Amino acid sequence: MYTLGIDLGGTHIKIALVDRHGNLVDDMQIETQVKAGPLRIIQEIKKAGRALVNRKSKKRIKGIGVGVAGDVDQTMGRVRFSPNLGWKNVALGKELKQYFNLPVIVDNDANAAAWGAYILDAKRKVHNLIAITLGTGVGGGIIINGKLYHGATGSAGEIGHMSINPDGVQCSCGARGCLECYIGAPHLVRQAKDAIHNGRSTILTQMVHGYLQALTPIIIELAAKKGDQLACEIWENAGRNLGIALSALINIFNPEMIVLAGGTSRAGRLITDPMWKTIKHFTFTTPRRAVSIVLSKRDKDLGVAGAGLLMWKDIREKSA
Amino acid sequence: MYTLGIDLGGTHIKIALVDRHGNLVDDMQIETQVKAGPLRIIQEIKKAGRALVNRKSKKRIKGIGVGVAGDVDQTMGRVRFSPNLGWKNVALGKELKQYFNLPVIVDNDANAAAWGAYILDAKRKVHNLIAITLGTGVGGGIIINGKLYHGATGSAGEIGHMSINPDGVQCSCGARGCLECYIGAPHLVRQAKDAIHNGRSTILTQMVHGYLQALTPIIIELAAKKGDQLACEIWENAGRNLGIALSALINIFNPEMIVLAGGTSRAGRLITDPMWKTIKHFTFTTPRRAVSIVLSKRDKDLGVAGAGLLMWKDIREKSA
Repeated sequence: MYTLGIDLGGTHIKIALVDRHGNLVDDMQIETQVKAGPLRIIQEIKKAGRALVNRKSKKRIKGIGVGVAGDVDQTMGRVRFSPNLGWKNVALGKELKQYFNLPVIVDNDANAAAWGAYILDAKRKVHNLIAITLGTGVGGGIIINGKLYHGATGSAGEIGHMSINPDGVQCSCGARGCLECYIGAPHLVRQAKDAIHNGRSTILTQMVHGYLQALTPIIIELAAKKGDQLACEIWENAGRNLGIALSALINIFNPEMIVLAGGTSRAGRLITDPMWKTIKHFTFTTPRRAVSIVLSKRDKDLGVAGAGLLMWKDIREKSA
Repeated sequence: MYTLGIDLGGTHIKIALVDRHGNLVDDMQIETQVKAGPLRIIQEIKKAGRALVNRKSKKRIKGIGVGVAGDVDQTMGRVRFSPNLGWKNVALGKELKQYFNLPVIVDNDANAAAWGAYILDAKRKVHNLIAITLGTGVGGGIIINGKLYHGATGSAGEIGHMSINPDGVQCSCGARGCLECYIGAPHLVRQAKDAIHNGRSTILTQMVHGYLQALTPIIIELAAKKGDQLACEIWENAGRNLGIALSALINIFNPEMIVLAGGTSRAGRLITDPMWKTIKHFTFTTPRRAVSIVLSKRDKDLGVAGAGLLMWKDIREKSA
């Protein structure tokens, strides 16, 4: 038996058959044609989903779980707003339900990742957990007493839009100094470019053969591991800024575990060392000692696995 | 039937007989002799509590609820650490239980206030609520799904020690730029004093007859209501800084209600107008529209009423 997990992001869509343990039995990835609009994207999802389903017996697929980068009304399966996709009020759940004739759950992508982290990283052994997805955007999901916490309107967890510098840079959300503006992938790259334009000497320039458009967090990671001063500073700052935000979460939420996932988390100790240094200054002793902060073991497919597992949760609850 | 509610703060201790609806049937207030140490303070609490209990029949007192300004181990009834009281590892619950021969609950004072706000201000009609106590310190308590949220070690809710300016002023907790450093009562007063020392013209000086030691938030409030520019600026800044912190809570927690309590909250619109102005810039639309932010109707005795109600909750749960 499988569920169909879908992780719908602004650059690509991951689709997989997910077993009840969160293993991906079969999966594919397609590009998100943002400019083509929601109808076209949903069509592509249907096509890819159908292809995966057809490789197994239809009877063995029990439902569909979707994680979407945006503000989601979980009860209606509706995407209220997604800046990354350019969507407003898209009835994604209804569309997929009609097409596949299967139960569908739609949630925010970081919530799906948080559920995945709770099952796959924490093995359900903690009560309270926060997952943070570090990629182009910075998302968050919260587990309280073993349940996904949605808040009043399903919007909870927007950790990327916590201001860590109210007089800081303008964020696309309208606020200033949001965490995402300091540790989102484009901002790490921009810091490198700005420094290079200001004449800073760094091996990053050679690494992309002078073609700065090719800079990515992975290249900055490699440069830092080679001891490049600028690259090290970029990670040091990223870790410090992440540490500031996590400190607030630790003092306010007092979680047992924080799971870091997403591309940028792969920088590992380059980011977690300065993060911990900051957390030691900015938190109380008792909650700091109680929290373990781990990198997800499944960061590459945590979102899609989590989406599939959300549907498994629903199946279990309804059969109980 | 009553419970004995105790609100143990760094300047005074409020003790009251609390009925199941949160009404204070009888109450008294004593000063906290911080320098005399925990043994002496506990002795004073016993004496005052005994006096209140003796005014009714002992049989009608069902238990004791205590809110303490500090880090509390609720399960052990132990005050782990209280900077305001200068306490470390004080077995307050055990002491009171032995003396009164009644069940005792000990919790953080802002948690007690949050429970009070949930019962008395929200009338149990919301699922998720955050209470913020604005006084000498800035505390917080969180209600999730109608229950007090304690986190992994009972430390949750320390909203006053969320940094809103990581490069800002040094806080007594060791961090920098904590919310408490900007809107705690002593900091509002210090801002006024600093401006006056720098030659700023203000009616505050006359209002305290040049005796700046007498400045309090209430006097700054009165001056602002008379149109004093400096006083208005102090509240404007306080409201903005509170708004920054609440914005993070709204984006992350997505609560239905935020209740403001404590002395500084009595400034009313002087603080809530700039607070809302800031929140409009720093939050997403959906969670912002979902939250109502109210001033507690019981701010003067919310802590002690909440402490008594915590014990009522325990009685109800144990008899269920």
